Amino acid sequence: MVERITPRTLKGFRDFIPEMMLPRERLIDIAKAVYRSYGFAPIETPALEHSEILLRKGGVESDKQLYRFNDPGGRDVALRFDLTVPLARFVAQHLGTLGMPFKRYHVGPVWRGENTQRGRYREFVQCDFDTIGTSSVLADIETVLVIHDLFNAFGFERFTIRINDRRVLAGLLERIGLETDSIAVLRAIDKIRKAGPSAVQEELEFSCGATSAQAEKILRFLQVNGSNEELLIEMEDIVQGSDEGQDGIDDLSALFKGIKAAGADTSKFQLDPSIARGLDYYTGVVYETFLDDLPEIGSCCSGGRYDNLAAVYSKEELPGVGASLGVDRLLVAMTELGMIEKRSVPAEVLVTIFDDERAVTSLEIAAELRRAGVDVELYPDARRLRAQLRYANRKGHRVAVIVGPEEMEAGTVQLKDLLSGSSQEVQRIDLVSACCEITDPIDSADTPEVSR
Amino acid sequence: MVERITPRTLKGFRDFIPEMMLPRERLIDIAKAVYRSYGFAPIETPALEHSEILLRKGGVESDKQLYRFNDPGGRDVALRFDLTVPLARFVAQHLGTLGMPFKRYHVGPVWRGENTQRGRYREFVQCDFDTIGTSSVLADIETVLVIHDLFNAFGFERFTIRINDRRVLAGLLERIGLETDSIAVLRAIDKIRKAGPSAVQEELEFSCGATSAQAEKILRFLQVNGSNEELLIEMEDIVQGSDEGQDGIDDLSALFKGIKAAGADTSKFQLDPSIARGLDYYTGVVYETFLDDLPEIGSCCSGGRYDNLAAVYSKEELPGVGASLGVDRLLVAMTELGMIEKRSVPAEVLVTIFDDERAVTSLEIAAELRRAGVDVELYPDARRLRAQLRYANRKGHRVAVIVGPEEMEAGTVQLKDLLSGSSQEVQRIDLVSACCEITDPIDSADTPEVSR
Repeated sequence: MVERITPRTLKGFRDFIPEMMLPRERLIDIAKAVYRSYGFAPIETPALEHSEILLRKGGVESDKQLYRFNDPGGRDVALRFDLTVPLARFVAQHLGTLGMPFKRYHVGPVWRGENTQRGRYREFVQCDFDTIGTSSVLADIETVLVIHDLFNAFGFERFTIRINDRRVLAGLLERIGLETDSIAVLRAIDKIRKAGPSAVQEELEFSCGATSAQAEKILRFLQVNGSNEELLIEMEDIVQGSDEGQDGIDDLSALFKGIKAAGADTSKFQLDPSIARGLDYYTGVVYETFLDDLPEIGSCCSGGRYDNLAAVYSKEELPGVGASLGVDRLLVAMTELGMIEKRSVPAEVLVTIFDDERAVTSLEIAAELRRAGVDVELYPDARRLRAQLRYANRKGHRVAVIVGPEEMEAGTVQLKDLLSGSSQEVQRIDLVSACCEITDPIDSADTPEVSR
Repeated sequence: MVERITPRTLKGFRDFIPEMMLPRERLIDIAKAVYRSYGFAPIETPALEHSEILLRKGGVESDKQLYRFNDPGGRDVALRFDLTVPLARFVAQHLGTLGMPFKRYHVGPVWRGENTQRGRYREFVQCDFDTIGTSSVLADIETVLVIHDLFNAFGFERFTIRINDRRVLAGLLERIGLETDSIAVLRAIDKIRKAGPSAVQEELEFSCGATSAQAEKILRFLQVNGSNEELLIEMEDIVQGSDEGQDGIDDLSALFKGIKAAGADTSKFQLDPSIARGLDYYTGVVYETFLDDLPEIGSCCSGGRYDNLAAVYSKEELPGVGASLGVDRLLVAMTELGMIEKRSVPAEVLVTIFDDERAVTSLEIAAELRRAGVDVELYPDARRLRAQLRYANRKGHRVAVIVGPEEMEAGTVQLKDLLSGSSQEVQRIDLVSACCEITDPIDSADTPEVSR
């Protein structure tokens, strides 16, 4: 007698059933293909690191959320909470081997002991790309082009990449004489979309030491409107006299020129003085990406430029630029926008079994289709046909292939279109093309002569 | 002044630099495509589970190797040490949603506090596929066909899938009257390849309680030779009178018929009475896969049939069959066999930068190539051309695109073949086809008219 254990996952952790995994895997595959098309190469780092590598000094939020423990050998270890700190450690450790510039992507799980009441998960996938070892604005340009290509490749038609530069914000603070913790100001600004202007004004005055006149000037800047060209001119005017501000304006200007030169759809890129990014390591261009039809879900791809990635691990100064794709958010959005087909199987065709004796014929047919490049599932048991078709409908197959004694004698098969419910008898020799006509009608109509 | 931390990974853990990751990612992508072509669907489960889910009773090896700790909420948790126990938990937990039969693949890291002196890693990837909820021999047949297709798709020409059935071995023990712990016998048999027959004979006599006559009979059985057909007849003869043994023979016989019907290369499948598999949960067909040119690295894909996957978590009886692909071993083998190109970049083309002013032209060219489907890296800094070409040679680019003032004026670009060292000047309009002729000469010669 077996003592049973209740099957359950940990709070804040998820199983992914095929219906969730199929679009997830597709999304990640597309992201990787886009990254590669710009010369980003994959890396991987361990899930576990020495705790000292991951700990930030000063008990910040991320430290408290660490899964930290002593391993069987007594080492103080922790699960990584993002892919950026491991990247910094990785680059510092392999500097001699890698060669600069270094462009990498990294897709992998991270772990945070988050408060699950906020709807957050304790394990989630990050999907980052970065260019390390160059300060060139070309790397910034390519970063936003990658984002542009990503959202196009995912099939979004309406999205906006909102772009700003931290140095322009710094230039503004310099010009209005607000000498304060600029990170606190940036964090306040970052809230404008969610909390609104008056809450930001309040925070600027009460937490950042701004006078009410200074706070007003900041807010006026955040709400400047117009085309990208108009905004650039106005922003340049506002930061006039600040070298740092001017550097930001120059790079933003080069950025928009580059976007145009690359032939990207310029309407997808919007200069936005209110984009600040809460993270404290950004030092130059920053961006966030919003879906025009679902702005409320927040930025689905954010990033920016930083001065020195690996200061904690290396003497070498390593400037870089990169972004992180919000896989979970994008999948929520795609589901809401009806962009995801509901299926639990990757194969569109199910080959059924008539009886044990004739199972070999079904096996032959499945192999034949597969050799022609069609993904096929073979039902393994000679159950009643009705049960097999119910299985196919439930799993989301598109076509069922049926071979009974009559078909076998006639050298034919029956194809059942599971969407329309209609059936047709086809010659064995026409099986592949008939299947493809149902699963992929446009493609097979275009190229009827090509063997698939 | 920053206090530096030495960048280092934990003992037994690895970073993967691009040169290692590119073939690794390719291998896994191919495996997924083959799995999908048989209707296996992806799933994912958490890295962390409640310890009670992962612990086996009786302090077996895997328990001692667990990364087990208390999470920030005080729960007793552990990192998964394989993908089979999480699969059992997953299937039991989602039984109502999944529907049987259920075919899944799962690629993900697992963690074991292994002794690293044996050259083992404490974090490694598993790449499993299983068919749950059916006892049909068709599922066994498809499992070995998947293995066959995997090794073909990886590019191996010489490999052997060695097949046996646990029930035939049990039938043999029944026939020779050896009533003993059959798992101990299987473990002894499992050593024949490495330790040789006399060591196995000794273990059978001293640890499994076999008489010397019984041990000799077992060894004779293990060393039976001949074609698959001859072997089947001989094995059937040996187990005659044992129902269990006969069931094994019947399934093996159906398996070889199925392989033939599917049109697979039958010379790749070899009945082998000595294949036993050490793991105690197998109950039927078992198999291991060896590379004919590197048999010493051991089985690169092993698996088999089991009676009841999730007995610990569910009343439901869930028979199944599956296998696990040895990603690390395969990559070692492919490196030794010279099947892996040495590169650190996914893009074959590097577009160089002449100077800051002309960088926009390089950006344009890179975008143009990318739109035509060519993966391109753009060098971000206007360093000396020699430095840029050194970078390309080091990273493994195949072609460098050079645009200086003269080329710009003439509307041309220079293409440098980095393998041969030769250069050619081509019209901008011919850029894509000229690039493809270098990177993919056969393809572009075959289809010169097709825009890539």
